Amino acid sequence: MAYTGLSFGNPVFAAYAAYSSLVLLKMFVLAGYTTYTRFRVGVFANPEDVKGNKGAVARLDNPDVERVRRLHRNDLENIPAFLAVGLLYVLTGPSPGVALWHFRIFTAARCFHTVSYLAAVQPLRTLCYTAGLLATISMTLQVLMAGAL
Amino acid sequence: MAYTGLSFGNPVFAAYAAYSSLVLLKMFVLAGYTTYTRFRVGVFANPEDVKGNKGAVARLDNPDVERVRRLHRNDLENIPAFLAVGLLYVLTGPSPGVALWHFRIFTAARCFHTVSYLAAVQPLRTLCYTAGLLATISMTLQVLMAGAL
Amino acid sequence: MAYTGLSFGNPVFAAYAAYSSLVLLKMFVLAGYTTYTRFRVGVFANPEDVKGNKGAVARLDNPDVERVRRLHRNDLENIPAFLAVGLLYVLTGPSPGVALWHFRIFTAARCFHTVSYLAAVQPLRTLCYTAGLLATISMTLQVLMAGAL
Repeated sequence: MAYTGLSFGNPVFAAYAAYSSLVLLKMFVLAGYTTYTRFRVGVFANPEDVKGNKGAVARLDNPDVERVRRLHRNDLENIPAFLAVGLLYVLTGPSPGVALWHFRIFTAARCFHTVSYLAAVQPLRTLCYTAGLLATISMTLQVLMAGAL
Repeated sequence: MAYTGLSFGNPVFAAYAAYSSLVLLKMFVLAGYTTYTRFRVGVFANPEDVKGNKGAVARLDNPDVERVRRLHRNDLENIPAFLAVGLLYVLTGPSPGVALWHFRIFTAARCFHTVSYLAAVQPLRTLCYTAGLLATISMTLQVLMAGAL
Repeated sequence: MAYTGLSFGNPVFAAYAAYSSLVLLKMFVLAGYTTYTRFRVGVFANPEDVKGNKGAVARLDNPDVERVRRLHRNDLENIPAFLAVGLLYVLTGPSPGVALWHFRIFTAARCFHTVSYLAAVQPLRTLCYTAGLLATISMTLQVLMAGAL
């Protein structure tokens, strides 16, 4: 009998942990990309950030930087929710195959969302956002049913 | 003896899971309400979002949209913290009745906070914000004592 | 044999819970500091916040308030990720000494990051941000290896 709790011996939990790590690493790469973009365009958020950096200015309205920041904020609206509800979903004892597809769809959707936001590709970006949200909502409803019934 | 770990057989955990799901669903509805508001006022964040949408503009300063975004950000400042510390709080083995009131107060406070922010009702909004934060701080202090002592 | 699961009897989990609580309390203090700063400078975000408050205005561009808000957002980009991946990291069964240093470095880095952001001290702020992120990335990679291999 497969163990169904929070242990790397439970294949559903191991998959949740692996996909969670991947989507977090994606977000950390995006944080680095914000810094890269700030240096590329020479625009920083704070006066102390541009001291001794010739040609750099402190402004909050550079379109390239603000695009990365909007994307990062969209990650913050979606990824912590996935991480929290995904763990509870593992504990509902879902079918491994169904669970795996929830994790895969969310992770793939957030990766393609990132690329399509940076490349300004619509409606792909909205489709990816929606796919990731639907995977999270599906898990949330299953957790609600397991907890409330 | 009631089980005290992370299992839907533990009534405190089941309640935590149910209220966490409810507060996440509330946040997802808010995400949809942002999109609804953008279409209602015809204001979007990115140039690629308004292509082929006659009369829509890309601006970042619409008061209606920014109000929903400030509210959503306030959710991000409070809900992931509740989700994370609530799980640890379940593991401290709290009295079920006391735990249930923490979860209920937080969830109700965030729902009424949402409505009062959208309807611009003060000081109800600040009271709801404070009630939700105090419930979270109470759980955080109990987790700190269980972990540090 | 020390228990390695999610229980306060497991010293690694207890340390994770204690440091998580500390870093959350730090963030809640920052939320209060935002309110303090708004009252100090008399600048609020919403028209309903300044009614009956003589001399207060609703504006979104006060430099002191926006600095605290940028710092708070940086917390949101880093602390929920630490909370989520730290729990999974505990379940990989790390060496207690190594795990403790991950938690200590993250918590100390975020506290000093907060102070250096408010005091506008560079490059200390960037060093603290990087130290906290590296501790989180190290845990994330260990979780990925435990889950994917």
